[in-house]
Amino acid sequence: MGLTEIRTAVKVDLKKPADQQPVLHNRWHPDVPFTAKVKDGEVFKVECVDWTGGQIGNNDSADDVKNIDLTKIHYLSGPFEVEGAEPGDVLVVEIQDVQPFQEQPWGFTGVFDKDNGGGFLDELYPNAAKAIWDFEGIFCSSRHIPHLRFPGQIHPGILGCAPSAEILAEWNRREAHLISTTELKRIVALPPQPQNVHAGSASDEVKEKVGKEGARTIPGRPEHGGNCDIKNLGRGSKVFLPIHVPGAKFSIGDLHFSQGDGEISFCGAIEMAGVITLKLSVMQSGMKDLDMKSPLFLPGPVEPHYGPSKYLTFEGFSVDDKGVQHYMDATVAYRQATLRCIEYLRRYGYSDYQVYLMLSCAPIQGHVAGLVDIPNACMTLGVPMDIFDFDISPTGPVEKMEMGACAVANK
Amino acid sequence: MGLTEIRTAVKVDLKKPADQQPVLHNRWHPDVPFTAKVKDGEVFKVECVDWTGGQIGNNDSADDVKNIDLTKIHYLSGPFEVEGAEPGDVLVVEIQDVQPFQEQPWGFTGVFDKDNGGGFLDELYPNAAKAIWDFEGIFCSSRHIPHLRFPGQIHPGILGCAPSAEILAEWNRREAHLISTTELKRIVALPPQPQNVHAGSASDEVKEKVGKEGARTIPGRPEHGGNCDIKNLGRGSKVFLPIHVPGAKFSIGDLHFSQGDGEISFCGAIEMAGVITLKLSVMQSGMKDLDMKSPLFLPGPVEPHYGPSKYLTFEGFSVDDKGVQHYMDATVAYRQATLRCIEYLRRYGYSDYQVYLMLSCAPIQGHVAGLVDIPNACMTLGVPMDIFDFDISPTGPVEKMEMGACAVANK
Amino acid sequence: MGLTEIRTAVKVDLKKPADQQPVLHNRWHPDVPFTAKVKDGEVFKVECVDWTGGQIGNNDSADDVKNIDLTKIHYLSGPFEVEGAEPGDVLVVEIQDVQPFQEQPWGFTGVFDKDNGGGFLDELYPNAAKAIWDFEGIFCSSRHIPHLRFPGQIHPGILGCAPSAEILAEWNRREAHLISTTELKRIVALPPQPQNVHAGSASDEVKEKVGKEGARTIPGRPEHGGNCDIKNLGRGSKVFLPIHVPGAKFSIGDLHFSQGDGEISFCGAIEMAGVITLKLSVMQSGMKDLDMKSPLFLPGPVEPHYGPSKYLTFEGFSVDDKGVQHYMDATVAYRQATLRCIEYLRRYGYSDYQVYLMLSCAPIQGHVAGLVDIPNACMTLGVPMDIFDFDISPTGPVEKMEMGACAVANK
Amino acid sequence: MGLTEIRTAVKVDLKKPADQQPVLHNRWHPDVPFTAKVKDGEVFKVECVDWTGGQIGNNDSADDVKNIDLTKIHYLSGPFEVEGAEPGDVLVVEIQDVQPFQEQPWGFTGVFDKDNGGGFLDELYPNAAKAIWDFEGIFCSSRHIPHLRFPGQIHPGILGCAPSAEILAEWNRREAHLISTTELKRIVALPPQPQNVHAGSASDEVKEKVGKEGARTIPGRPEHGGNCDIKNLGRGSKVFLPIHVPGAKFSIGDLHFSQGDGEISFCGAIEMAGVITLKLSVMQSGMKDLDMKSPLFLPGPVEPHYGPSKYLTFEGFSVDDKGVQHYMDATVAYRQATLRCIEYLRRYGYSDYQVYLMLSCAPIQGHVAGLVDIPNACMTLGVPMDIFDFDISPTGPVEKMEMGACAVANK
Repeated sequence: MGLTEIRTAVKVDLKKPADQQPVLHNRWHPDVPFTAKVKDGEVFKVECVDWTGGQIGNNDSADDVKNIDLTKIHYLSGPFEVEGAEPGDVLVVEIQDVQPFQEQPWGFTGVFDKDNGGGFLDELYPNAAKAIWDFEGIFCSSRHIPHLRFPGQIHPGILGCAPSAEILAEWNRREAHLISTTELKRIVALPPQPQNVHAGSASDEVKEKVGKEGARTIPGRPEHGGNCDIKNLGRGSKVFLPIHVPGAKFSIGDLHFSQGDGEISFCGAIEMAGVITLKLSVMQSGMKDLDMKSPLFLPGPVEPHYGPSKYLTFEGFSVDDKGVQHYMDATVAYRQATLRCIEYLRRYGYSDYQVYLMLSCAPIQGHVAGLVDIPNACMTLGVPMDIFDFDISPTGPVEKMEMGACAVANK
Repeated sequence: MGLTEIRTAVKVDLKKPADQQPVLHNRWHPDVPFTAKVKDGEVFKVECVDWTGGQIGNNDSADDVKNIDLTKIHYLSGPFEVEGAEPGDVLVVEIQDVQPFQEQPWGFTGVFDKDNGGGFLDELYPNAAKAIWDFEGIFCSSRHIPHLRFPGQIHPGILGCAPSAEILAEWNRREAHLISTTELKRIVALPPQPQNVHAGSASDEVKEKVGKEGARTIPGRPEHGGNCDIKNLGRGSKVFLPIHVPGAKFSIGDLHFSQGDGEISFCGAIEMAGVITLKLSVMQSGMKDLDMKSPLFLPGPVEPHYGPSKYLTFEGFSVDDKGVQHYMDATVAYRQATLRCIEYLRRYGYSDYQVYLMLSCAPIQGHVAGLVDIPNACMTLGVPMDIFDFDISPTGPVEKMEMGACAVANK
Repeated sequence: MGLTEIRTAVKVDLKKPADQQPVLHNRWHPDVPFTAKVKDGEVFKVECVDWTGGQIGNNDSADDVKNIDLTKIHYLSGPFEVEGAEPGDVLVVEIQDVQPFQEQPWGFTGVFDKDNGGGFLDELYPNAAKAIWDFEGIFCSSRHIPHLRFPGQIHPGILGCAPSAEILAEWNRREAHLISTTELKRIVALPPQPQNVHAGSASDEVKEKVGKEGARTIPGRPEHGGNCDIKNLGRGSKVFLPIHVPGAKFSIGDLHFSQGDGEISFCGAIEMAGVITLKLSVMQSGMKDLDMKSPLFLPGPVEPHYGPSKYLTFEGFSVDDKGVQHYMDATVAYRQATLRCIEYLRRYGYSDYQVYLMLSCAPIQGHVAGLVDIPNACMTLGVPMDIFDFDISPTGPVEKMEMGACAVANK
Repeated sequence: MGLTEIRTAVKVDLKKPADQQPVLHNRWHPDVPFTAKVKDGEVFKVECVDWTGGQIGNNDSADDVKNIDLTKIHYLSGPFEVEGAEPGDVLVVEIQDVQPFQEQPWGFTGVFDKDNGGGFLDELYPNAAKAIWDFEGIFCSSRHIPHLRFPGQIHPGILGCAPSAEILAEWNRREAHLISTTELKRIVALPPQPQNVHAGSASDEVKEKVGKEGARTIPGRPEHGGNCDIKNLGRGSKVFLPIHVPGAKFSIGDLHFSQGDGEISFCGAIEMAGVITLKLSVMQSGMKDLDMKSPLFLPGPVEPHYGPSKYLTFEGFSVDDKGVQHYMDATVAYRQATLRCIEYLRRYGYSDYQVYLMLSCAPIQGHVAGLVDIPNACMTLGVPMDIFDFDISPTGPVEKMEMGACAVANK
């Protein structure tokens, strides 16, 4: 006999606050208790809440984005105990399918307020903004950003195995060092924070420890992956994750219906709740055998594909918008590419916030071009022209169209 | 009657020093004289020397790379006067074909010495190194990096229109500012340099001026493009370039048989001499109509393609190899991804220099993953597995193979 | 407000015989009563049984295939009344998603017995055979055909609108003419057949009429589509169907997890029950405006893709296996291509029946090459090499592997 | 040392009649003398004339097509003696590049007169017609079929090794049998024909023998390939050919800049003269080791690619345009699909002959859909929408455009 019904190893309740569901947690810590056990090679389903745990509504106001409580995010499903997994092994995660819930065929993209989350372009666009997306099978469209429709490449933003105590200590050390030495006038990293910590089914004692030591889920980290926000981890992809604790303590969440490279508005993918079908396998001694320090992956075979000539591509250089020359700064260069694209698409009548949201969540390609020609890094941003229902190719002057509006909150 | 024989608008002599050929030049300056005139919409061919002007030989020593004279590089063909082109217009460049010379079916990839050029990984790999590539139609392979064969996506590394005097002054200002303020202990930018300036057919007086003011060709720059090293500008691509001077003064050169995203070893593409077929068209008032500050482009329809699931992809984060946490630094993150790949491929018996060369010139995909999850930028580097004649998929321990050696120079 | 929960317009019961479910039917006839009404532009789900109505079991015997009752097949869901649809309009069917049931993650491929159904190669392979496929998200594999795993391109084999009385009469006329005039010694077409007719919720009187006149569902037909078995009608595809009766009377069924071009073993796709998400829109006067006599379609954007060079392709010519030269016969030529492929893959240890099943259901590309070079039609059959877990590229002699067996019934 | 200049093993003179050039020949026969010798594994170039040997001019009249002398066609370059090749071996032909001559950047597509060549649709379109195509690098366009421009996938229509005497006798036997038994009222095959035979550098005696016995080059044949007209044998493809005589006697010719599946108008590709770069390798005992009776191939990695959803696809069934039902006839079905497409594109103002030419030479996909659903074969024809400079998607009524005319000859 072959495969019979596929079990759902974790179920969530979309009507109940995320912090009251013991199958969820929101910190990386080796002491968060296991939620479920899976066999090596087992196929199973996992339900996930959206990354805000339901804080954002299907409506036309961005106030919920503006006022989001960022201590109550990234509720991950798990951690799962994988039979036989030991530190030094590699967990092979095949993402076999990802789907929204039938009863919730929608998601959202948000721009955070500069003073509550911020984002890649917050110096230019400090207000909170929001777009709601309707899902029609593999497609999505938004009443807030018209003339746009595209197939999603549904994927989890976050997956990883728990850090060991040593690795966790190293994270806390190096991020604290950055916080204490930075000259930037902005929040550069988030230290452990007991407020609203959710440690799954942990005892109060463990929960307190997790609150004091547990790593925040915002950044991805080299030793385990985590919140990498890689848009290519969709259907059929295979991720190879380092295992640092017995049983692996694998967690997953932050489902995205679609995301652009960079996820620039921070709440930038099309965030959704849904169900993911997984197969986990253990590669014994994999870290040594693959000489692996950070995750690696193989994308899936069913990515939406456009011909290569259908990407309108913008170039960005490491000269910032004030005319300052930066040395080989790919981050500055990519920001410039995004600004070039906003300027271009604005001509059709889109507001800057609409384009900012669009570039965050549509299947935008962000590529390295040249990183050695001092002093200018060159980065490119490619927009698949076929996601629009009008022709955006560069043929000359254009007329503005009726583009409605996305939700934008007051400052 | 339709198209008849296609004329070659610029011919080069591979046996003559580049600096003695008046159809070439090696500075960006509005006063470099026109080399040839082309009609709006004309199809024509241009011959180009390799970017070192023939300094590198088809042999097994990297001494020529180590001792390269970097004041004698980037000899560009042109500038071309495009009929009717005016400042504010956009030059639409269709790259219709690019081919090596039949009598020179080979190219090279080099790693520069840390003290003479350097590169993306020069702190770890300070020696000069070299690989020679043989071209068989669309394919290339190297006796210096065995078990690797792939189709090239032949493209020019450099193309652009001359800056106006104002733009040139701005380049010099902002790069000088960087030079004078940097705290980095390395060369961060290259100011104008009269030594070995080549101003085409210019008079001595003009040549002197170009030497004093002319912009070096190493970096790409936002106002005109230049040395962007974008691997996707191959057959069938279309580039939209800002025009800043009457007649456009379009120049092109630095042909690459293939390049990886980032061109990380600096002399990193498969550098070659060859012939490019172009069609130039003028879009009047294009800069205003497209609201265009930097070049944009559409890739061509015949890029080599592998299935999406055939890219083995490495993740890199902005924590450097000394364990220092950087804030959202995509450059650091991409460097980490390249190091992860070197560690992985080293297992098969390749030397680090072989992989460094390979990642520079093979069709490597360098992508932005997440750029908002403070403090970690996440970048990915994807290697198309089908370019190897053995299986590099991550299945467990491997045995070293006989991999010969690339040329490496002494320090 | 945007899209909320998506309704399921037709539900089936997998545990109940198909002929007892009034939401199903198995004939094309204008008098089959409507099952449900949908709005122009509505998104909804439809459940479908497998095309045999559950006659085939998840086991290791092919007796059920051998003894299948072919009067009890092709139970279609519907017909649907589409608001506003009139004869002469075109029904635009967007296939937004297709999924197996969570509780039935498997399907089957069968070869029919030569005397009960037959197939493309029944003269050479007269026995019934069967393979069961397990579904893991987008992937499938079979215990009966090892070393093979691939992503499905799930699609409906059958969709169409009911014929008008006139069109139905024409079908019956021309197929009866073929039956009465053929010189072939085999069943060439299937006339109306009252036995086991299922006319949905029709009255006995209507049912009798449908039995006498209704068109069998086996062949596709130019006026409406029907059982076209086009593997590209997967997620995201859009089919344009002629409408011949008021309300369209659209029906759908015969879901395939995957199919090869030609579906050569007849029961040849991976047959499954499942759920399809649809959006139906009416294009008024579309038949005239598009000058459309037969359906046309746009495939979806998420087809599994392999690089073009990964298809091992076999050539077939219109010279049959007895050495007889046929005149420009593409059917003979395609049969020869399939035989060449069987001979090739047999070398690895697969039985001929295993390959026959595989070519029926895996994503095989069957192309026209030349159809004008008298007297030989040339057809090609391309096998994506990446669906095997071993290398099938043509490099020389091979060793047989342990390939188990598919189920084969006695004659 | 690696590869140096690539030699041109056969040169042709475009200004000299093809039948006066001893490096060409126009029959398949084992006694045609070798033209040049190549080493196993050698890379070399071969020049080829167009398949009519220069009978068609770059002008606006189709009279040359109408009056073409079909005894003077298919002048192949070769045959080549491949070092070490023996009967039973397989010749592995890597097509490394194909290019038109720089001095002849154009080609032609013709519809033959029904009484002099004919074609797939000659009953409906009996007149001769012609379109001239201009080549701009990888692109082509025609003054005779406006609003169309696409990248070519340049390939040879013909390649193969000479038959042995036994195989040649079998060809003549079976084709003679067809000629003597057919009930069709048209020419169904072409027997040996001494008129205008060209046997390369053969003596008069050999030439006479070749004239009497030599196989005409029109059809491809299963034992060796020949005129298969497979559009996918472009840059980077690899063809595996059976060898039947010592030295292989490999010949090649009939270059196409582009072709649609089926090459339906017979002179249907974009025919051109040009240069092909090849690498020939011998696989000893390959026919036995691969169990190979007919050629097989791997396409190249740089085919032009459009997203899968960009193919507007027409369905055809085996009911002919007189309403006659044919039994599983894929040829009839494909003809119907072509007619559906002509009807569709005619709406935009194209003449039927323009579309007939276009479908012959543009990168049309002709696929098998279903070949088992008695009595209807279903075939599909896919048109890449991006080859037009206007939108041909099926959205409703359209207005006719100014489409000029192709050349059409009087009957």
